[in-house]
Amino acid sequence: MSYARDNIARLIAYAPGEQPTAERMVKLNTNENPYPPADAVLKAVGRVSADQLRRYPPPLAPAFRQVAARFHCLEPANVIATNGGDELLRMAFTAFCGVGECGIGQTQPTYSLYEVLANIHDTPITTVPLNEDWSIPDDFAAQLNKAGCRLALVVNPHAPSGHLEPVAKLEAIAGEFRGVLLIDEAYVDFASTSALPLVGRRNVLILRTLSKGYSLAGLRFGYGLGHADLIATLDKVRDSYNTDILAQVAAIAAIENAETARDNATKVIAERQRLTSALIELGFIVPPSETNFLLAQPPDGIEAESLYQSLREKAIFVRYFRQPRLTDKLRITIGTPQQNDALIAALKSLR
Amino acid sequence: MSYARDNIARLIAYAPGEQPTAERMVKLNTNENPYPPADAVLKAVGRVSADQLRRYPPPLAPAFRQVAARFHCLEPANVIATNGGDELLRMAFTAFCGVGECGIGQTQPTYSLYEVLANIHDTPITTVPLNEDWSIPDDFAAQLNKAGCRLALVVNPHAPSGHLEPVAKLEAIAGEFRGVLLIDEAYVDFASTSALPLVGRRNVLILRTLSKGYSLAGLRFGYGLGHADLIATLDKVRDSYNTDILAQVAAIAAIENAETARDNATKVIAERQRLTSALIELGFIVPPSETNFLLAQPPDGIEAESLYQSLREKAIFVRYFRQPRLTDKLRITIGTPQQNDALIAALKSLR
Repeated sequence: MSYARDNIARLIAYAPGEQPTAERMVKLNTNENPYPPADAVLKAVGRVSADQLRRYPPPLAPAFRQVAARFHCLEPANVIATNGGDELLRMAFTAFCGVGECGIGQTQPTYSLYEVLANIHDTPITTVPLNEDWSIPDDFAAQLNKAGCRLALVVNPHAPSGHLEPVAKLEAIAGEFRGVLLIDEAYVDFASTSALPLVGRRNVLILRTLSKGYSLAGLRFGYGLGHADLIATLDKVRDSYNTDILAQVAAIAAIENAETARDNATKVIAERQRLTSALIELGFIVPPSETNFLLAQPPDGIEAESLYQSLREKAIFVRYFRQPRLTDKLRITIGTPQQNDALIAALKSLR
Repeated sequence: MSYARDNIARLIAYAPGEQPTAERMVKLNTNENPYPPADAVLKAVGRVSADQLRRYPPPLAPAFRQVAARFHCLEPANVIATNGGDELLRMAFTAFCGVGECGIGQTQPTYSLYEVLANIHDTPITTVPLNEDWSIPDDFAAQLNKAGCRLALVVNPHAPSGHLEPVAKLEAIAGEFRGVLLIDEAYVDFASTSALPLVGRRNVLILRTLSKGYSLAGLRFGYGLGHADLIATLDKVRDSYNTDILAQVAAIAAIENAETARDNATKVIAERQRLTSALIELGFIVPPSETNFLLAQPPDGIEAESLYQSLREKAIFVRYFRQPRLTDKLRITIGTPQQNDALIAALKSLR
């Protein structure tokens, strides 16, 4: 006999990307930033006192909210701090989605966690396939409205394709959609535009994370930006002390030293261009990416899954998804020049 | 127009204890440990590298699970690491409780977060008043079974009374109750017994936290101990990377240096005895406590709420609950000898 709720007993849990521990490996499988975070982050962590650890952290992370608000030219009431961007996603389900009715809308493909969270929350999913060029179909909002969706999840720039939707397109979706539009900007630090100008709208919530652009995946720190009413609703469903004191001071240092993140992004973008060209030269099909990864389709005659395995045997880790439209492709995180060179050399040797 | 779910729109959110910032204050209101954590904890945090922050943390916190399992003479499969004990509570609701049916059972009074989490989850609550001496009524499990509860929440030692139920009583409840019995041992480090021997049972889940006994409220680290099947179910509903790398290494160091926590608990218990006696001498009614706080009823003629306010004006912070059976009492965290002396002196001056 199981004590689990029926939907949890049935659930296939989220599978995080592998975290291999090989000594000498090229790890291009989980979209981590190849460059270290700002020195100020470790210094800030090192300054946390025993007394700060002993006491409860400020539950609302007010200092972080203030710093992030100033950074984005918003008010603290437009900001919520979360234990990774994933927590913001879960909180949005809890705050806006009923159970067994009025579910979420998403694209296909998209970040695979959305579906897992919907299944945990036991809320229905409306899935709209993306166009051939990975753009969102024009009737996306209409389809979601028809299904009665309360929450739309759009990752932009898109994962795993790297495609960027223009802000005007997102604005049109927000205007037409009758629920909350969550724009997951996990990769925005590598993109040319952001949906930040839409924060004033009553139904737009933007997700940010320090995991990618700020090189702090180990910290689990994300935040939401949105209309004060949306943020207030999310605050009601927040775990009472959801971010710890170490993460709060580290996150503040990261934002206050955002030039490090910008410099790292510049390097990643340059390598993205170089790796894209090298892969195309090797016969891969690689759509333009505005993220820190590429979705690359190997040349005819080379199966993506076996290429993934062959690279793995050389201790080069990339990501393979057994999902519609993705089985013939590999998602490759942009690494350092040395890591990317190692990948290119390996691909040449495997031809 | 609100985008919030109806139950969230109606929700009265959890009110954490006040975190005053006065320069010279005596803070006895949120059950923090008055003594610092083991030095090894800060040292472990200081050893975390930029590269560890850059990469995702191990999602299952395997090193922590191993250390905690060894410490409690269990297997790693019996342990789950969470972002504070509060996250384990929320995960138990998600994993075991349906929505709109088959809710939770709790006592009255109890930790006030349980009711808030039930309202967030939109699951019904069956509340059983405690006996006059704060013990659990013999028909607790029967009442919960009758109501179809799927999850029972019992904080033991009890908050806010400090009362400890014997393990045999909890075992009887577990045997009779048809759902999962979550025993919240947030304060167990100050108690004479633990329900740990019940972990083998298929329906018992024990909550532990580093916030109190380990002086790490700022870290947000808790864990669950239970049958491997219960832990596996909780793992399915866990946020994908729910504990960060800083918290994981700090928590390992805390458990590996548990003698510091034990020494601190010994000091707290000695002060608990001294403060109890002093309060009784001042005419308070103080039931025996097995926690790091006392629930003290002022002598006739002194209103608890106005005493709370008078102490506050002297920068001495205790907790007052406007709840049934508690409006005539104060919850006082055990502080250092100096803090407790300051409290006693203030109470004398206010007579």
